[in-house]
Amino acid sequence: MTSKNQHSRRTFVKTLSAGLAAGVAVGGFHTEKKAHAEDKKSDSEKSGNKKSLGVALVGLGSLSTNQIAPALQKTSNCHLAAIVTGTPEKEQQWASKYNVAREHIYSYDTFDKVVGDDSVDIVYVVLPNSMHAEYTLRAAKAGKHVFCEKPMANSVADCQRMIDACKLANRQLGIGYRCQFEPHHQRCIEIARSNDLGAMRLIDAGFGFKIGDPKQWRLNKQLAGGGALMDVGIYALQACRYLAGEEPISITAQETKTDAIKFAQVDESITWTMKFPSGVIAQCSTSYNFNGLNRFKAFSDNGYIQLDPAFGYSDIQGESSQGPIKFEQVDHFQLELDDFASCILENKQSRVSGEEGLKDLKVIEAIYESIRIGKTVTIS
Amino acid sequence: MTSKNQHSRRTFVKTLSAGLAAGVAVGGFHTEKKAHAEDKKSDSEKSGNKKSLGVALVGLGSLSTNQIAPALQKTSNCHLAAIVTGTPEKEQQWASKYNVAREHIYSYDTFDKVVGDDSVDIVYVVLPNSMHAEYTLRAAKAGKHVFCEKPMANSVADCQRMIDACKLANRQLGIGYRCQFEPHHQRCIEIARSNDLGAMRLIDAGFGFKIGDPKQWRLNKQLAGGGALMDVGIYALQACRYLAGEEPISITAQETKTDAIKFAQVDESITWTMKFPSGVIAQCSTSYNFNGLNRFKAFSDNGYIQLDPAFGYSDIQGESSQGPIKFEQVDHFQLELDDFASCILENKQSRVSGEEGLKDLKVIEAIYESIRIGKTVTIS
Repeated sequence: MTSKNQHSRRTFVKTLSAGLAAGVAVGGFHTEKKAHAEDKKSDSEKSGNKKSLGVALVGLGSLSTNQIAPALQKTSNCHLAAIVTGTPEKEQQWASKYNVAREHIYSYDTFDKVVGDDSVDIVYVVLPNSMHAEYTLRAAKAGKHVFCEKPMANSVADCQRMIDACKLANRQLGIGYRCQFEPHHQRCIEIARSNDLGAMRLIDAGFGFKIGDPKQWRLNKQLAGGGALMDVGIYALQACRYLAGEEPISITAQETKTDAIKFAQVDESITWTMKFPSGVIAQCSTSYNFNGLNRFKAFSDNGYIQLDPAFGYSDIQGESSQGPIKFEQVDHFQLELDDFASCILENKQSRVSGEEGLKDLKVIEAIYESIRIGKTVTIS
Repeated sequence: MTSKNQHSRRTFVKTLSAGLAAGVAVGGFHTEKKAHAEDKKSDSEKSGNKKSLGVALVGLGSLSTNQIAPALQKTSNCHLAAIVTGTPEKEQQWASKYNVAREHIYSYDTFDKVVGDDSVDIVYVVLPNSMHAEYTLRAAKAGKHVFCEKPMANSVADCQRMIDACKLANRQLGIGYRCQFEPHHQRCIEIARSNDLGAMRLIDAGFGFKIGDPKQWRLNKQLAGGGALMDVGIYALQACRYLAGEEPISITAQETKTDAIKFAQVDESITWTMKFPSGVIAQCSTSYNFNGLNRFKAFSDNGYIQLDPAFGYSDIQGESSQGPIKFEQVDHFQLELDDFASCILENKQSRVSGEEGLKDLKVIEAIYESIRIGKTVTIS
C-alpha cells in the first residue's frame, strides 16, 4: 500500500477515536464503558474487526517521547490511543500534541481501569526494567495484549510469569526487539539461514555507549536489574542468537569496572563468549563507558556478513562478502508495532514473543552467574 | 637514503660476497676460514665495520622461499649469505637463484660449522616451532646473532633458554614480529601511546585462516606446539599488547573444535579475553578453520583505531575516528631484517627482542591453561 493510503487510514482512525472519545468525555471512565456497550463482543472478535489497534503507552520517558510516539503517527495497523504517566505536565503536553482525550489518560494508580477502555487493544510497557513484569501482568489482567520493551524483565522467573499471565488472558505478548524488523538485520538473517556462505564459525558482536547522568534509573540496580548488559548488551546477544539460529549452550563472561562510583550498582563493561551446538562461537561485548561499539560480524566458511553500525535507531550500514547490504533507513518502532498489531489482527504468533525475551534473560542470567563464579556456565 | 643508494650498496655487498666465495669455493669451509683469517677481530668489531650483515636462512619452506629470501634482495643492512636445508634439490635451486656458494650451504647436520663462516652474522631460524630453541642455541653457540620466527618457542622455559644462550654469547636475539615494523601498525601504536583518543577501553582482535594440507607440520603438536593460537592468534595477542602498551594480568579462554580429525593434535579455534592493569579489556579470536578473520579495533574514550585487514603480508587497511590510516604497502620482512641488522650494527636493543617473544609465550601458556581448567588464569 502507498504511504498516501496509510495516511488516509490513520487519519480516519484518529478522527474516529477522537470523535468517540469526545462524546463521552464528561462522564469519564465508567460512562465511556457504557457508551461503548455496543462493542461488547469477545476481544478477539473486536480485534479482528478493527483495522487499526489502539496502543496505550505506559511510561512517557525519552524513548516514548522521541521514538515510539512519533512512530505511532506512521503505523498502519495501530495508533496511539492512550497514555499512562505519573507526571501531570506530561498529560497536558501529550494530550494536546497527540490529541489524547482525558478519559484515555491514566496514572499508574488508575492504570487498571484500562480494562474498560475499548480504544486500547495493546499496552506498550516502556518503563524501567523492574516494572515490566508488574505492568505486563496488570495489562494482561485488563484483557490487553502487551508489547514490552527489552529487556523483557530482570529475571527468567519474571519472564515466565509474564508469559503465563498473557497466556491465561489469551493475549499476545511481544518484546521490543526492533532490530528483527529492520531490513539490514533481516537480510543478514536471511543470508545466515540460506547457508549460502557455508557453516557459520564466529560471531563478533558488541553494543555500548557512554552513559550520562549518574542519577538515572539505568544505573540503579533495583530498577534496571543490571547495567550495560541488560540495556544494550542484549542487542549483541539477540543478534548472535538470530544469526546463529540456535541457542547457546555455554557462557563464559568477565566484567570490567573502571569507575566504581558511577557503576557502584550495575555493570560498566562485560565481555562474554557463547558456544552454540553447531560449533559457532560468539564473542560479545557491551559497555556503558565508551561510544562507538555498535556492530556485528559473522564469519562463515565462505564469507562474512556484518553490520557496523548495527543497532542504532538509524544509520545501519551493512556488507557481506557478496557485496553491500543496503536498504533505506526505516523507523524500527513503526515496523515492530505494525507487525505486532498485524499478528494480533491475523491471530498469528509474533516473532518477538515473550518466549524469545525469556531466552535472552536465560543467557543474561548465565552471564552474570559466570562473572560471579569466574567459570564457564552451561545452559541446559 | 634513496633506494638507488640502497641498491648500489646491496649490489656492492653481493658482488663482494660472491667474489670472496668464488675465490675459496674449491677449498670448502676450512679453506674459506683461512681465507678470512685477516677478519679475525672480535665479533662486535666485525659487525661494527660491516655495512651489510650476512644472514643464514635456516629452513627453506614457503615462508623463506616466498617472503624472506625475496626480502633479503631488498634489504640495505643485511643480505642472504648462507642457507641451511635438509633437501639437496633446494641447495641447487637456491645456490643458482641467489648465488650462494657451496661453502655457505649447510645441512642440519653440518649447521654448527657456521661458527667458522664469517660471512654469516645473523642466523634466521625459519623452522617448525619446536626447533626454534635448538637452532637458536646452536646459532648462539656458533657466535651468531639470532633472528627467530614467531612463535619464539613452544614454552616459556624454551624462550628463557634462548634468551640466556644469546646473552651468554653476547649476541642479539630478535623475533619475527614483522607487524611492529609495518607503518599502519606503527601509526596505530603511535596514536595509542599519544593518548589523543583518551583512555583505551576495549580491543577486538582476531587472525585466522582455513588451513589446507592436513599432513603439514603446523597440525603436528610435537612440531608446532599448538595450532591456530601459536601460528596466527599470536598476531592478535601481540597487537593487543602493543596497542594497550601494558601486559595482561588475567586470561579467560575457550577452545572450539568442529573437526576432531584434522585438529586431533592442535587447537582449531580459540577465543580469549585479556584484562590489562589499566582496565583495557581485549577480546581475541583465532582459527585454522575459516578465512577472513584478520583485524583489530581498539575503542578509546574519544575514538577508535582499526586495521582490517591487519596482519597479512600486504593489503593492510586502516582507519581511526580521526580519518584514514593510509601508507604505502611495504615488505614487512625487509623492514624487520633491516631493523635487526641496524640494531646489531648500532649496538642497540631490538624492539622485537627475545624478552618480547617470551612475554607472548607467557600469555599463550595462560590461554592453554585457562582452556584446560575452564577458569580465568591470573598472570603475575
